[in-house]
Parts: sequence; C-alpha cells; structure tokens
Amino acid sequence: MDAKVEHQPHPFDAATQVECTDGRWRGATSDDYHAFVGQFGGATTATLLRALMAHPDRAGDPLALTVNFCAPVSNGAFDLAPRLVKATRSTQHWSIDLTQPDVGVAAFGTAVFAQRRETWSHQPAEKPQTSHYEDTPVYSRAGVAAAWIRQFEFRFAENAPNFGGAPHPEPASPHTKAWIGHSVPRVIDLISLSAIADAFFARIFHVRGELLPIGTVSMTTYFHVDAADLATEATTAVLGVADANVFHKSFSDQTGELWSASGRLLATTHQITYFKA
Amino acid sequence: MDAKVEHQPHPFDAATQVECTDGRWRGATSDDYHAFVGQFGGATTATLLRALMAHPDRAGDPLALTVNFCAPVSNGAFDLAPRLVKATRSTQHWSIDLTQPDVGVAAFGTAVFAQRRETWSHQPAEKPQTSHYEDTPVYSRAGVAAAWIRQFEFRFAENAPNFGGAPHPEPASPHTKAWIGHSVPRVIDLISLSAIADAFFARIFHVRGELLPIGTVSMTTYFHVDAADLATEATTAVLGVADANVFHKSFSDQTGELWSASGRLLATTHQITYFKA
Repeated sequence: MDAKVEHQPHPFDAATQVECTDGRWRGATSDDYHAFVGQFGGATTATLLRALMAHPDRAGDPLALTVNFCAPVSNGAFDLAPRLVKATRSTQHWSIDLTQPDVGVAAFGTAVFAQRRETWSHQPAEKPQTSHYEDTPVYSRAGVAAAWIRQFEFRFAENAPNFGGAPHPEPASPHTKAWIGHSVPRVIDLISLSAIADAFFARIFHVRGELLPIGTVSMTTYFHVDAADLATEATTAVLGVADANVFHKSFSDQTGELWSASGRLLATTHQITYFKA
Repeated sequence: MDAKVEHQPHPFDAATQVECTDGRWRGATSDDYHAFVGQFGGATTATLLRALMAHPDRAGDPLALTVNFCAPVSNGAFDLAPRLVKATRSTQHWSIDLTQPDVGVAAFGTAVFAQRRETWSHQPAEKPQTSHYEDTPVYSRAGVAAAWIRQFEFRFAENAPNFGGAPHPEPASPHTKAWIGHSVPRVIDLISLSAIADAFFARIFHVRGELLPIGTVSMTTYFHVDAADLATEATTAVLGVADANVFHKSFSDQTGELWSASGRLLATTHQITYFKA
C-alpha cells in the first residue's frame, strides 16, 4: 500500500462513515456499494457496526451482530439511532435503527459487545484445505452489474460460479470456498468482517447456475476474535466458506465461515434470504 | 395422550402463556422451567414468540427469531413490549422487549414473519444417519439440578454426556445428536421449536466433561417450515444435531439443526454463549 492510498480514505471507509452532530447520527449510501436494488447489505451492516463502535458509551468489541433488512436503503443520507439497551459488568446490548424519510425504518440491528479476557481457548473447527490465496486465480468481475461486487476481490478455491452459461439442469452444490478481500487492499478489521459476512454470492445463484431476484432478510454474525486478536493476523483476505441447507417457500438459509490464512476462525455468519424462483 | 392431559394446559403452554389487557402484554416465569440462574432461555424465547404470534397485527409465520439475553429473568411476572417495526406485502419485522421492575430489560428480540407461498423447493442438507427415536435410550435426568431439563426428554444417538465421572483429560468433541421432545408428550409446533433450539446442553459441558457456569448471550433461529408444513409432520420429537466451532476469551458458539424423523430440516439455530473456564 503506497503512501498516497494511506492518506485517502479507503472506499470502504468512505462508504461506511458516520457522523454525530448534536446527538444525531447520520450516514449516507455510496455509489461504490450499490446493489441491484438499494445498497449492498454488507455496507449497511458495516455502517451500523461503525456507528456502534464510534459511540462514546461503547465498551468492548463486537461479539454478535444481527441486522434485519426491512426495505432497500435508498440512495442518499440516512439517520441512525443507536441505543444502549443494557450494560452489565463486561457486556453491552445495543440496538440501532436506520431510517430514511421516504422509507421509514430500512434496517435495524442488535449487537452485543464484550470486553473479552483470556480464558481457556479451544477451536474444534478446522480450516478446510484449499489452495493458498496467492495460488488461487482472481475471479473476473467483468460485466458484473452490481457495483459492490467490484469493491471486493474474490478468488474461488472451490466451486467458482459460471453465470455466462445455461442454468444447471439439476441443482448444483451450494458449497463454495473463496478468498475474499477488498479490491483496494485494506487490512481486515472487525468492520470489514461484518461486511464480508454478506459478500457471498447468493447460494441460489450457485445451485441454479443463474441470477434470480434475491434479498437478505436477516443476518447474524458472531465474532470469534476481538480487535487485538484480529490485529495480530494483519490479513487483507479471508477464506470464506459458504453453504445452504434449505430453499423452500421463497426463503433459503446461508451459512458462512470466515477464516484467516493462519487457520483461525475469525467469524461465523448466518442469514435468511428471500428468493424468487 | 389421554383425555385428562388434553384438557389441562400442557406445562410448556402454561409456562409460556401471555395475556394482553388494555394493550399491556404480560407473562410470568414458571418454576417448571427454572434454570441454574433465572429462567431457561428457551422458555423465554418461546414466550416472546408466543406474544408475537398472538398479536392481532401479526401476519404469516415466524421465519427468523433473534433473542438477546441481557440479564437473568427473575422469578415472577414480566412485561412484554411487542412492536411492529416494518411491514411489507408479505413480510413483517418485529421487535419485542421483556422487562421486569427490578431488572429492566432482561431480554429483547427481533423477528421476521412471512406469508410463505409455494416456490421451487430444494434441501441440499441431508438428515444424519442415526438410530431411530424408538430404538434410542432415554437419557436419565435423575439428580439433574435444573428444573427445565426435566421438561424435555433427551435420547442421545451420539455422544451422550457422562457428567458423573472425572472431567475429560483432553477436549472431547462438541458434536452431539439427540432426539428431543417434551417430557409430557406434545405435538411440536413452531413455538416448541423455538424452545428446543435452546435445549441443547452447553457445548462446553461435552467438551470438558464437566458442568461450568455458562449463559446464552444471543440466539438466532431460522424456521425452514411454516405452521402448515410442520403440522403435516405431526411429530412429538425432533433430532437435534449440535456442534461448536470456537471457545475463546469467555465465549463460544453453538450451531444446531432440528430435523423431523422424516428427514426434513425444520429449523437451524445458532447462539453465542458465555462460559467461565
């Protein structure tokens, strides 16, 4: 990363910035993170998390974050209403609403923050064997319609999609493994992780081999590292493993794991997604 | 089930009942579902869900439910504040707070309801091979300290715990498979599912082979069937598959699947749990 880049706000940080003036929290969408309809949910999620992390009453690091997507976030500004619901000695429970004048509540979330201290530590889950980041070809996003996809670099280690051809005659596997980082290199912090948790392509695209109307309805991410743990990884790409269990009556689930190259499970994420098929 | 039982409220329905008088929603804890500290989280969850389902403005069936546990729910009555945050043509987003005078907000949740219609349907996940319910021995709860555990019948098909012996010298697997139903037989509906989603023993108990202080901090359940789908299963026990990925700095995750005997994935559930070890 050269000095010039370091002195500019990274597109991700620019897109997810928040400000608080006289107790009013505000943010705005960025054209860089536009999705097919409204803003990329991961950018919305990261903005909510950034507001909570920037709040003067916040203590500790994010542990759990749930975001409910009620309506597309329209281009332009929005208000944020963070609220500390309950604080205990070492944890905090927050809620936050995102509202727009023409939409009302477009998204709202709940989060748990914790001041995490060393304890017994054990990771039964093992990082899947894949090609290394450096050896995995960059997935071409040429011709991709949604702006947000160009903000991330995907390197599929397994089950790369091929959307150019005919739809699959039979359902294919929803399972994928891909290295994911910001297109403009940026060290991955907890706010990045919260966005990358929503950066998997919709599972139905992989299963059906075609693009269909979809939308995340609710997403939950658990952080298995705190800021200090993640800083020691100093990573610019994570291995994202995603899958789905069920597609039924307009909704499917998605499960995701975000791994560091060193073999540490940084976060797990789950969402329920609307589909039209 | 004999006629007498049919005419009494089932202990689960009695424990999770709610009433609304002049717009004020109330419930109360039940000694039957007492946990080590406060009320069993699954009973709290089911009570929140029951209030939302009983709300006159509710449309559709629960699709996603997140409950944040802020403080132990004390013995006695509590107030519930359900709020319809946003409604679209076929989905509703709700929030609900549970408060007690001496505690403040003890738990709060968010939920998505949807009117689900037939679409393309596909279940990539396959039910694990296990012994049948009828062939699986009932797990003895003799001497179990927490009342709520006696309200469920557990039949471990894999990795039954043995808490009587010495702690494991090395971490054991957090993976378990168990048939779970109400001790007093009751057909499993969506409200049951929301409680059974929290009825797995804490993963650390299995890994360490000992009981340690734990508490669910946040739990999310996705329902992959609607009420009509579940009614066709007419089941009194589900196969619960649970696992954990990470134990680190006071918190661990837990993943769960609830399967019907017929091989249908009814719900998936995830939680983040505090532990002291």
